[in-house]
Amino acid sequence: MSHEQFQHCIDECIKCMLACNHCYDACLNEDHLEGMKECIRLDRECADICAFAAQAMSHHSSYVKELCRICADVCEACGNECKKHEHEHCQRCADACFSCAKACRAMAS
Amino acid sequence: MSHEQFQHCIDECIKCMLACNHCYDACLNEDHLEGMKECIRLDRECADICAFAAQAMSHHSSYVKELCRICADVCEACGNECKKHEHEHCQRCADACFSCAKACRAMAS
Amino acid sequence: MSHEQFQHCIDECIKCMLACNHCYDACLNEDHLEGMKECIRLDRECADICAFAAQAMSHHSSYVKELCRICADVCEACGNECKKHEHEHCQRCADACFSCAKACRAMAS
Amino acid sequence: MSHEQFQHCIDECIKCMLACNHCYDACLNEDHLEGMKECIRLDRECADICAFAAQAMSHHSSYVKELCRICADVCEACGNECKKHEHEHCQRCADACFSCAKACRAMAS
Repeated sequence: MSHEQFQHCIDECIKCMLACNHCYDACLNEDHLEGMKECIRLDRECADICAFAAQAMSHHSSYVKELCRICADVCEACGNECKKHEHEHCQRCADACFSCAKACRAMAS
Repeated sequence: MSHEQFQHCIDECIKCMLACNHCYDACLNEDHLEGMKECIRLDRECADICAFAAQAMSHHSSYVKELCRICADVCEACGNECKKHEHEHCQRCADACFSCAKACRAMAS
Repeated sequence: MSHEQFQHCIDECIKCMLACNHCYDACLNEDHLEGMKECIRLDRECADICAFAAQAMSHHSSYVKELCRICADVCEACGNECKKHEHEHCQRCADACFSCAKACRAMAS
Repeated sequence: MSHEQFQHCIDECIKCMLACNHCYDACLNEDHLEGMKECIRLDRECADICAFAAQAMSHHSSYVKELCRICADVCEACGNECKKHEHEHCQRCADACFSCAKACRAMAS
């Protein structure tokens, strides 16, 4: 796996972590909280695994492939949930999630 | 999966995290550091994934099985490395790792 | 600082992390989510800093006092919020938060 | 505090986390490990608090100032240690640490 691919995946995980945390915070301030609960839950989950994967890649963990596989799964679930909501923070988060999922799948393969 | 099994696995992950961090710190204070580098590396890795898995289980993540599968792999690798060293902190850490690996395998299955 | 005090504070942080994550998950399943948003937010925050402090203490970080001071602040804020809600998970979480705050204050002093 | 200042501090924490984890991994591969033990220890510590602070800032934690104060302390300690070593990874890490410390001090004030 090339250095560039590695760096790209770290960057995607960090962008996704930031987008998920921003979306998490914004969702908790939305008026109709009832419809946002799955989004809140997945935003936290996705931010946490993205942060974990970025750390693991940056200290050259031996478990990068396995972690990126889970990270891709969580990103896809979070992206699919966010995509349903019209809020700009959700749409941006969905984009970050799908982009990160793609980079993580490439790392995991 | 029963509540008891869940609680048992969380407890094992926390015990293993504590043992790994204690071993990590003690290894860095040993005289012959050269032979301890793989132990130091795996102790950190194992402590981090155990802490992550314990958090994920305690907020009922949907990715508990996948996380426990990686956690079991890391615990086994860390236990096998620690087992090679005669220091008491390494032997205790190996025991905690193998015990945690067993609980995580049961969760992952 | 005695070994017992150290171990006690680690145990309290872990108990509090587990209670906060349990409360976080349960709050997201409550009917009247609107009133629980501050509880959800603080539960995550408190679980995260408790997990971080427990890890730091267990590898003998040099920043234990400073971390425990923040941890105590977050635990008190989370405990005060949880105390307002009648749900059993909130009341239990409040107890764990206040107990952890006390142990962290002792470590920080 | 401006949005730009916030974003700048998050970026610095992430750059510093990556530099510290890279340095941690490279230190563990150096020949004379004995002299690197404090560097290894502080690299992990600094990477962890930087990652934590970046996450906290990105979900708008109420404890950003307190966390950035500790983060600045750890970054300065890690930067001072790395500065002593001639390895390129240590010198780069020191630069990232001092730059992050400055951004965190500004956030904390």
